[in-house]
Amino acid sequence: MPASSSLLLLPRVAVTCNTSFEVLEAPAIHIQDGAISYIGPRHYAPPFEPSQTIEGDHLVAMPGLVNAHTHAAMTLLRGWADDMPLEAWLQTKIWPFERHLREEDVVAGFELALLEMLRGGTTCFADMYFFYEKTAQVLVESHLRACPGGVFLGFLPQPEQRLAQAIAFARDWQNAGEGRITPFLAPHSLYTVGRAHWEQIVAAAREHNLLIHTHIAETTREIEEVRSQWNDSPVQVLEELGALDGPLLAAHAVYLSEQEHELVASRRGSNGHSNFRVAHNPTSNAKLGSGVAPIARYLRDNVTVALGPDGAASNNTLDMWSEMRLAALLHKATSGDATLVSAQQALLMATRDGARALNLQDRIGSLEAGKRADVVLVNFDKPHLTPCHSVVSHLVYAARADDVDTVLVDGRVLVRGGQVLGLDEERIKQTAQARAMKLAGLAQLGESS
Amino acid sequence: MPASSSLLLLPRVAVTCNTSFEVLEAPAIHIQDGAISYIGPRHYAPPFEPSQTIEGDHLVAMPGLVNAHTHAAMTLLRGWADDMPLEAWLQTKIWPFERHLREEDVVAGFELALLEMLRGGTTCFADMYFFYEKTAQVLVESHLRACPGGVFLGFLPQPEQRLAQAIAFARDWQNAGEGRITPFLAPHSLYTVGRAHWEQIVAAAREHNLLIHTHIAETTREIEEVRSQWNDSPVQVLEELGALDGPLLAAHAVYLSEQEHELVASRRGSNGHSNFRVAHNPTSNAKLGSGVAPIARYLRDNVTVALGPDGAASNNTLDMWSEMRLAALLHKATSGDATLVSAQQALLMATRDGARALNLQDRIGSLEAGKRADVVLVNFDKPHLTPCHSVVSHLVYAARADDVDTVLVDGRVLVRGGQVLGLDEERIKQTAQARAMKLAGLAQLGESS
Repeated sequence: MPASSSLLLLPRVAVTCNTSFEVLEAPAIHIQDGAISYIGPRHYAPPFEPSQTIEGDHLVAMPGLVNAHTHAAMTLLRGWADDMPLEAWLQTKIWPFERHLREEDVVAGFELALLEMLRGGTTCFADMYFFYEKTAQVLVESHLRACPGGVFLGFLPQPEQRLAQAIAFARDWQNAGEGRITPFLAPHSLYTVGRAHWEQIVAAAREHNLLIHTHIAETTREIEEVRSQWNDSPVQVLEELGALDGPLLAAHAVYLSEQEHELVASRRGSNGHSNFRVAHNPTSNAKLGSGVAPIARYLRDNVTVALGPDGAASNNTLDMWSEMRLAALLHKATSGDATLVSAQQALLMATRDGARALNLQDRIGSLEAGKRADVVLVNFDKPHLTPCHSVVSHLVYAARADDVDTVLVDGRVLVRGGQVLGLDEERIKQTAQARAMKLAGLAQLGESS
Repeated sequence: MPASSSLLLLPRVAVTCNTSFEVLEAPAIHIQDGAISYIGPRHYAPPFEPSQTIEGDHLVAMPGLVNAHTHAAMTLLRGWADDMPLEAWLQTKIWPFERHLREEDVVAGFELALLEMLRGGTTCFADMYFFYEKTAQVLVESHLRACPGGVFLGFLPQPEQRLAQAIAFARDWQNAGEGRITPFLAPHSLYTVGRAHWEQIVAAAREHNLLIHTHIAETTREIEEVRSQWNDSPVQVLEELGALDGPLLAAHAVYLSEQEHELVASRRGSNGHSNFRVAHNPTSNAKLGSGVAPIARYLRDNVTVALGPDGAASNNTLDMWSEMRLAALLHKATSGDATLVSAQQALLMATRDGARALNLQDRIGSLEAGKRADVVLVNFDKPHLTPCHSVVSHLVYAARADDVDTVLVDGRVLVRGGQVLGLDEERIKQTAQARAMKLAGLAQLGESS
């Protein structure tokens, strides 16, 4: 998949997701050296001699989708355990499976995740898992954009060495893959990482200007555990650690006290955006019975909200279209207010606000001149997208991952006509299936022994 | 699309949705004269010389999906109005659009709905709308199975004539289309139809053995209106009318009092199944901010629960896969109990229990010898369905409408390789688009005049 030096997109409509949220009819999008050099009306476009043109009246252009919280390689556990309370799910099903994971397994699950995400228009994702150095190599080869993090759990063997390794990775891989790799620090949570390690992590974040990606306030049980270990509630602990002095990507953030809501609303960076960014996981929180995050409150407080599917073990896909749709539906359902989380807001969570949550707002998240060309073209010539009164409504309430026709990252065409280029789909599916079955067998042996 | 006189299906797995909920590996399914004559292990299968064979290790067989509540032709209003409170949505957007509907418009929207439903594996649906005699003709030609109803609203002109016509339709069209058409009586609701008309409808239901399909207890405002008009709550009014002495398909059923819950749990037919059948519409109720129906309670009370997308104006698709998934997620989210509405329960709502809700349990809803051959084959050879630890989990939590490979109704192949046969997709999409744009223009003119 060679990069075109220049590419012209002529879709029917472009949903820019820029600050003024323009929906451009009959736009031209010029792409040069991986960046958008022009987007606007065709008749205002400057002269351009593209080496490739993609056009179609059935196509709607939008920014690539940003998955703000996932454990990509957990595709191997897709459907391995459902309809169980969180504790039993983790202790009797997930951990016994993960215990047997080897590097080759994680790579297999990771490649499957890349395939699934690309097919569905996800161009950037914040990942948190094991064997991250190896999967980062796979990532560079895949040409996707991502924010990988070496998940750190305090109770695993050799914690000092593991932590140093995760910090070194985050520091040394910044801007790898021609700038597409932006590693984060990824302490698992407050209840699995102790104070000394958290202090090291916050110090490293400040020293090397790194974002911290962690799980916060996912369940009521977690709140109790954090209180018993730290004698305070999660966000207060983060504040006391200094973790809110810089950007913090908070996966879940379901349970905050009034005081904590006020705190996260007030802690802002020099650009005015909140340091505390919520990676909302509506499907995962629903499926595990964890609850419903107070998204309306975050939006009212101007706290950045992004979207993520979490791992495929609790979703069971990596489909950002499902997350957008559920985000738009769930808060209406539970509040009785049909105006909460509009289609436009849900779409922004998955694009511009996702980019902002990941500190990538200067590079991606909208279709604007100067930004990297991470673009999705959606095929609207479908029964379920007919008629078309509103493109934005369709993107959130009606479109599906399968409607993605073309995906560009850094101006390179990674999906065309719904086919993922550059990844060997058959090999990846077969390898993932075989490794998942082996691991399932080992997990079941472990159960019965 | 000629019917094969005999057809052999050899999928990898069949999810029967029968009483013992068998998941058969390497099954054979024999279809003769539109019915299943054998389903079971291949090596026990009787001799069979099919005129056609469909086989594949990537295919999972399941019963056709049953959409238990919809207004099919409202596809024309897909995305016409979102993120609005119910009253404003109806009064400023939906009714001004519907006011201009002519028969040709309704046919166009109806054909689009057939296309969308078939593509996604829906083989039977309970419909409620205008111009029902014309759309019933389209239905017969399409070879789908359905339970159409002429929606009755008391406040429209010439109510007596309209009601007589709707009753005559329900009586005279029973078993039309070689038995695939089972019309219902479709009074819109208790707040739009008065006592005298309701009494006529209940009498006709008893006389002609017809099911009543209506909207019940959708919003708190409806509860108030019914109380002010009837001086009682909705289900109590139904009981007093005698409407619970026979089968009643209750769309929505979000708000029941404790007394009403006990009532619907107790009113059962001679087969032991509840007369009161809930058509649960999780997406529509969420999108309009109507609330969350007490599905866990209905299941505990052994009240039959089916699923429906409602009309595309409040969904915005007719996708039963989204409904299954949301049904499985929503009640876990709002209760905090991850065991509520399991994948198996959600799948049954969309198949066997849907058939039961429509009184079609003797004909469809499961893959069993003797039942009509309404079968869906799902293509599992997809990244998001890999690996496969559990077929049932994948059908509910991971599969999408686009994964439907083949659809049979009465043994006739209506979809093959994801292509809808026998319907002219291009003509239908173009006609629906043109008519929707015309109607949108008329509605907007009406607004501004």
